[in-house]
Amino acid sequence: MAKTNPGRFFEDYRIGQVIDHAVPRTVSGGERALYHALYPARHALYSSDEFARSVGLPMAPLDDLAAFHLVFGKTVPDVSLNAVANLGYAEGRWLKPVYAGDTLRSSSEVIGLKQNSNGKSGVVYVRTRGTNQRGETVLEYCRWVMVRKKDLDAPAPEAVLPELKPVLAPEDLVIPEGLDFTKYDFTLAGEPHRWGDYAVGEQIDHVDGVTIEEAEHMLATRLWQNTAKVHFDATHREDGKRLIYGGHVISLARALSFNGLANAQMIVGLNGGAHANPCFSGDTVKVWSEVLDRAETAAPGVGALRMRLVATKGGAPFELKGDDGKYLPHVLLDLDYWTLVPR
Amino acid sequence: MAKTNPGRFFEDYRIGQVIDHAVPRTVSGGERALYHALYPARHALYSSDEFARSVGLPMAPLDDLAAFHLVFGKTVPDVSLNAVANLGYAEGRWLKPVYAGDTLRSSSEVIGLKQNSNGKSGVVYVRTRGTNQRGETVLEYCRWVMVRKKDLDAPAPEAVLPELKPVLAPEDLVIPEGLDFTKYDFTLAGEPHRWGDYAVGEQIDHVDGVTIEEAEHMLATRLWQNTAKVHFDATHREDGKRLIYGGHVISLARALSFNGLANAQMIVGLNGGAHANPCFSGDTVKVWSEVLDRAETAAPGVGALRMRLVATKGGAPFELKGDDGKYLPHVLLDLDYWTLVPR
Amino acid sequence: MAKTNPGRFFEDYRIGQVIDHAVPRTVSGGERALYHALYPARHALYSSDEFARSVGLPMAPLDDLAAFHLVFGKTVPDVSLNAVANLGYAEGRWLKPVYAGDTLRSSSEVIGLKQNSNGKSGVVYVRTRGTNQRGETVLEYCRWVMVRKKDLDAPAPEAVLPELKPVLAPEDLVIPEGLDFTKYDFTLAGEPHRWGDYAVGEQIDHVDGVTIEEAEHMLATRLWQNTAKVHFDATHREDGKRLIYGGHVISLARALSFNGLANAQMIVGLNGGAHANPCFSGDTVKVWSEVLDRAETAAPGVGALRMRLVATKGGAPFELKGDDGKYLPHVLLDLDYWTLVPR
Repeated sequence: MAKTNPGRFFEDYRIGQVIDHAVPRTVSGGERALYHALYPARHALYSSDEFARSVGLPMAPLDDLAAFHLVFGKTVPDVSLNAVANLGYAEGRWLKPVYAGDTLRSSSEVIGLKQNSNGKSGVVYVRTRGTNQRGETVLEYCRWVMVRKKDLDAPAPEAVLPELKPVLAPEDLVIPEGLDFTKYDFTLAGEPHRWGDYAVGEQIDHVDGVTIEEAEHMLATRLWQNTAKVHFDATHREDGKRLIYGGHVISLARALSFNGLANAQMIVGLNGGAHANPCFSGDTVKVWSEVLDRAETAAPGVGALRMRLVATKGGAPFELKGDDGKYLPHVLLDLDYWTLVPR
Repeated sequence: MAKTNPGRFFEDYRIGQVIDHAVPRTVSGGERALYHALYPARHALYSSDEFARSVGLPMAPLDDLAAFHLVFGKTVPDVSLNAVANLGYAEGRWLKPVYAGDTLRSSSEVIGLKQNSNGKSGVVYVRTRGTNQRGETVLEYCRWVMVRKKDLDAPAPEAVLPELKPVLAPEDLVIPEGLDFTKYDFTLAGEPHRWGDYAVGEQIDHVDGVTIEEAEHMLATRLWQNTAKVHFDATHREDGKRLIYGGHVISLARALSFNGLANAQMIVGLNGGAHANPCFSGDTVKVWSEVLDRAETAAPGVGALRMRLVATKGGAPFELKGDDGKYLPHVLLDLDYWTLVPR
Repeated sequence: MAKTNPGRFFEDYRIGQVIDHAVPRTVSGGERALYHALYPARHALYSSDEFARSVGLPMAPLDDLAAFHLVFGKTVPDVSLNAVANLGYAEGRWLKPVYAGDTLRSSSEVIGLKQNSNGKSGVVYVRTRGTNQRGETVLEYCRWVMVRKKDLDAPAPEAVLPELKPVLAPEDLVIPEGLDFTKYDFTLAGEPHRWGDYAVGEQIDHVDGVTIEEAEHMLATRLWQNTAKVHFDATHREDGKRLIYGGHVISLARALSFNGLANAQMIVGLNGGAHANPCFSGDTVKVWSEVLDRAETAAPGVGALRMRLVATKGGAPFELKGDDGKYLPHVLLDLDYWTLVPR
């Protein structure tokens, strides 16, 4: 019997099935430092223990997206090894900050299945939860992927499509315990703009750009223990290119959005996201944002903004889709998230 | 007087000479995190403090090979600066796990000398020991290198060839105190295969591959404070290529072997190893393994496997040498080691 | 109103103005480990907690230059975003070592202003201080940059040129509390050369070289949260090259000087420095040093050396300027600093 992991095929999934993913991971100051080396991350709450304490947290947490990547990376061998497309995200919520010393693991429940009409593949919906060493859920999100069938004769399962919220409501968002922005230091954070300064519909060109190198995206993707061949093996694709992990683009885009959104400190909700076009080494990534919605929260001094974050490789900002409704070729990422901002 | 280190030449070594190597090093979570960024390392015992505690250790140790590289790196200025070839390893044993906070140093004893018949170089055998801040030996191994003479008129020393075991016996292996695999969690570790599932002669193609970038091998090699010119200075070799540190290939190969050997948690013995051909940036490394032997141990639930680990740059798996008995040109590494596996 | 930071222009500075820079940063073992991966750093005092304790410090500090880069990086958005040239450094002093767990912030005072005769730009002099979480100054230095005017009609300020010492006097240097080199272990440090072994005028060719990769300088520069476009965005300059942060060259040069200056443990003074020519990916950096002065200190066993450190990309060592008094084209860096050495 072959000892290597062949991955699951469409016919291997069952509604309600729970998959406990392998390789728990303890994080330390090392992961925090690497995140700052890999991305131009400057949000003060994740950079300074003192700043984090000044807003009611015990110390600076691991970047929210680093937590996401660590939880996500564990799911790859079980969920997306034989995936032909990563179709979407929904209902992503950060429930507890992750701190140095925490050990993360993750598990996924199959919540939807629908075989494609061609009979060769199907769509698998999972809800993934990341938990810490105390068994507390730190993060959960839904993802759906198209997965190949191995046995084309395997019977199609009854189609089950989960009801997923297109957008999280403000009351769905979980504010970290103790978070208090009433003594927020705007000078240390880097910009004066408050929650009230952002208007729905406002667009921001974040100006800065980063040209990606192979070594960088591989270091990052390995750090999250996401070992999908296509990111590392230049002989795997016919064109000899290594596809950059979509999460690398998300983190790069979020970090680049600091310039104009320095006070968008925490990410607490992921409404959806599309990897519109593949990203490769040599691409120069630039980003723009749009304010989609605003909401108050019960936490002192804390407001929420729903933001669109778009990463492009060249092209003018604020252009997203063509007349055909499809993403323009230079668009890499279209992300819809909720963030916490001082009022 | 020149203040830079010219390195030792063959005539500078004496049997019984002990060289205390410079630059002790304290390790932290930073080195652990970097190891995960540099290699696709996923063995659970080194990734999770919780998993390590579940098998009787106080926390996740530094990867065994990282400990090896740190100890090895210190020897380079004293042993291999004027080496023309790295000939072999033997009797490598890991005696104590290395944890964040430990400070490592190393020393080498000259245990063999033999001048070559051409009178221009000779073979130097050393036994190197790595010790922690408590003076405990954490690792020892023998290595032999061919070193140039500077003074060709220096008299040849009496030839002394050490008796080195071609293979460590199971009773030579040191099992970390407290290690207990009876409650081993195979789901968290990533594969169901136990010690008893591996048969002598069984071969495993580990499937995954990594294309190496210059920045990556230099970051890694520097991290171990191995500063041999040939790895860093593109003007040093006539062909303008930077030779990749052999240890980088060892770590990459070991990490890639996770897929099929996820439960080969700890490396406790190094029987031998050959860097069959040089490795350069752009090479895509793939690996295969062969089970060479099996042994029981006195530790609860712990078995030992003697494994061959072969790294290649392309070429079919399981092909090692040609009809002439020489390594095939695509073979990079042929390593023979003992590892601990749950029974 | 645009929310992104346009940077300050020449007319935005006032004598006596104090700018508190954004984004404080807590350092950990992660930054220490990354420094060892990014540079061939081997000075024992920064590598080993045990060695640091043997010379009177509580543990190994963060490398002095890493502290410099962290303090410097915070000033970029406020001081040099619209700079056309980085003109010089003076009166740099390290006042307190920085340890894992410390949180650094920085502020700058405008101490000089002089509009250029063309009316389009001017020179801004700032004194920057880095402080830790206890409000102690850990580092201070002066820097002057040429900054563009935005409003060419803005009136020229009264010219104020600060009096800056061309060289710090030995009595200006601050020796870390408790530092005692009387039990200094030269074997562990890597070289036998003491303070008394270095003669004024002595030159050292440090022999080793490193060829720089794009990924490396970007990782380093981001780690210091210096996000100036020109280092990251290959589309920013007309030639498609990313300019390497001058501080990356400083750190690389200092680390390469280990071979011949292994006992030049701590940097305590920066007298001046010039980035003579731009550095780009692919350059192979080599370094040489010259002893400029020597001084005794009040600390037990501790002497000070004033050193010139020159980084080049090829070319013979010890050649610095042409007949025209200008730096030769292969010279990258000319640094003048004070370092502490065992007597």
